[in-house]
Amino acid sequence: MTKIDDLPIRDELRGQSPYGAPQLDVPVQLNTNENPYPLPEPLVARIAERVAEAARHLNRYPDRDAVELRTGLAAYLTDTTGFAVTKDQVWAANGSNEVLQQLLQTFGGPGRTAIGFEPSYSMHALIARGTGTGWVSGPRNEDFTIDVDAARAAIAELRPDVVFVCSPNNPTGTAVEADTVLALYEAAQAAGPSMVVVDEAYVEFSHRASLLPLLEGRPHLVVSRTMSKAFGAAGLRLGYLAADPAVVDAVQLVRLPYHLSAVTQATALACLEHTGTLLGYVDRLKSERDRVVLGLRELGFEVTESDANFIQFGRFADTRAVWQAILDQGVLIRDNGVPGWLRVTAGTPAENDAFLSAVSTVSKEL
Amino acid sequence: MTKIDDLPIRDELRGQSPYGAPQLDVPVQLNTNENPYPLPEPLVARIAERVAEAARHLNRYPDRDAVELRTGLAAYLTDTTGFAVTKDQVWAANGSNEVLQQLLQTFGGPGRTAIGFEPSYSMHALIARGTGTGWVSGPRNEDFTIDVDAARAAIAELRPDVVFVCSPNNPTGTAVEADTVLALYEAAQAAGPSMVVVDEAYVEFSHRASLLPLLEGRPHLVVSRTMSKAFGAAGLRLGYLAADPAVVDAVQLVRLPYHLSAVTQATALACLEHTGTLLGYVDRLKSERDRVVLGLRELGFEVTESDANFIQFGRFADTRAVWQAILDQGVLIRDNGVPGWLRVTAGTPAENDAFLSAVSTVSKEL
Repeated sequence: MTKIDDLPIRDELRGQSPYGAPQLDVPVQLNTNENPYPLPEPLVARIAERVAEAARHLNRYPDRDAVELRTGLAAYLTDTTGFAVTKDQVWAANGSNEVLQQLLQTFGGPGRTAIGFEPSYSMHALIARGTGTGWVSGPRNEDFTIDVDAARAAIAELRPDVVFVCSPNNPTGTAVEADTVLALYEAAQAAGPSMVVVDEAYVEFSHRASLLPLLEGRPHLVVSRTMSKAFGAAGLRLGYLAADPAVVDAVQLVRLPYHLSAVTQATALACLEHTGTLLGYVDRLKSERDRVVLGLRELGFEVTESDANFIQFGRFADTRAVWQAILDQGVLIRDNGVPGWLRVTAGTPAENDAFLSAVSTVSKEL
Repeated sequence: MTKIDDLPIRDELRGQSPYGAPQLDVPVQLNTNENPYPLPEPLVARIAERVAEAARHLNRYPDRDAVELRTGLAAYLTDTTGFAVTKDQVWAANGSNEVLQQLLQTFGGPGRTAIGFEPSYSMHALIARGTGTGWVSGPRNEDFTIDVDAARAAIAELRPDVVFVCSPNNPTGTAVEADTVLALYEAAQAAGPSMVVVDEAYVEFSHRASLLPLLEGRPHLVVSRTMSKAFGAAGLRLGYLAADPAVVDAVQLVRLPYHLSAVTQATALACLEHTGTLLGYVDRLKSERDRVVLGLRELGFEVTESDANFIQFGRFADTRAVWQAILDQGVLIRDNGVPGWLRVTAGTPAENDAFLSAVSTVSKEL
């Protein structure tokens, strides 16, 4: 039988494993930061309706430029942040992963480097690898905020082509201050000029405002977003970005033509029609997130300040053992490889109760 | 206003334009090899049904490995070619473009090269560029078949990591003989070993059998397919490949996690349920294609032998002028940049009549 390493694959792929959280069939799944609320039935019906309309023309290629969808996403951003953006400033792809991949194909790639401040969303480094972009792991403070002076020094020294800032940061939950982004942007312009990508996948769950208004006057800044979390549509794979129109033009040089299917566009448009309901679920999740933070602190755990729909808690001498012990109670959480810390997604009240109960049981054994 | 070239994009992107056929609003569109038959209403209803089911779980990530879909695609390949493949030999992505991109990320990339025999599907070269893979344009004979001796010599000399063979070839319509593929595969093994990718996007329209059975005993051979053409689902963006299971494992090292949305998987599964009806449309299109070939020859044109749902015809001293003259008659065809030749997609009987009438009028002015 042929094995992967018998094939003429790229050297840097040898011995690697595919990225992805372990998928285990347990009652309470709080490991991948999914939104626990299924889409409401009226929205399901509307999706079926819009997809049926799209299916009647499915023999034709989809709108290559996804103009209606980008217009809808621009309206959503404008409505929720108060900062006006137009469709010319918005681009969409199959998940924010594909958005980031297109950005790295455009602004990174062979002979170029990107920097991120770790621990952070591990796909940033993986997509860098997949696009041949060099990767530099930048520093964070002990409390998981970005060490601005160290970050500026790293940017000045290494002159990366792309700077990733994840806010709120995954897996720590840490929001990044606007002043920090401005400092890093200035450093990146002095060193490059380089692109700064603010990954706001979880921003709707934040106590703080979106960093979107920082786009004003900053053509090398990009804000990426997703419908996976706040819109409860992880299965849809719809990511998007907002930036200067020139950035939107530039990624079209590398995007695969017709990358976004007609059914994806139709489904996303249906979801946008139900924004109000879906953001109501976000409010519930924020309350639940805050309740779990309190519960964990009451149990004596350290909890990293969270602006996301997940919570990093610790500290543990043996994270793997604690993860397994919680799993043994029927609750799947995530070990992201941050020494001493684990991550749990905010679920429904019942799921969160199950988690707090499991972790309480486990804590007595620690 | 910021322009693309004001941004720190990669040097090789400077001055480039996004790939894509011009989209013009004319009555008869025979320019992008779309299937002219809309999906039948029972299939539209089934898509709505399956997508609604999927939408009820859209808050969760999709099946990362698309097991049900790959099983269905494997059954389709087995049924239509008589060569048994299993889901472990099949991989799917957002259009065959993404399949090819993943293959080049795995087996091509920086410091590696790919070869194709041009004129051929121009995305092969573009995806090579997008993945940092060097590109070599190999030779074809005057009749657009592959010059086997010249191709073997090029492979032996240049030792490309990936060899693309498009059969039936776009934009010429030319099918490739099994013996040719075997000769190139042997040359690629002697020079590499290297991967050989047979792009069968249009194979259902061919007079000849699929090259799929060549996979037997050849772990470095890949056959790529799409649902865009034979399944009449260009808007769906569903491409797939069949190969040794090790190849399927290998591309999972570079695929973006959860790349294939739940709505895409649901829609593709619905289409597979209606394979019989859709292949009936393919039979109609094959007859129409043959009729248009005859019609063009009766008008005195040279026509390249076609095994696809499109026809290359010529020759013209000024292809651009002829393309425009046909467009002026309300029929949009494609100038693929092959000197002396134009390409027309086989449409419905009425569309083909309109095309033949337009080209007849134009031919009198030539």
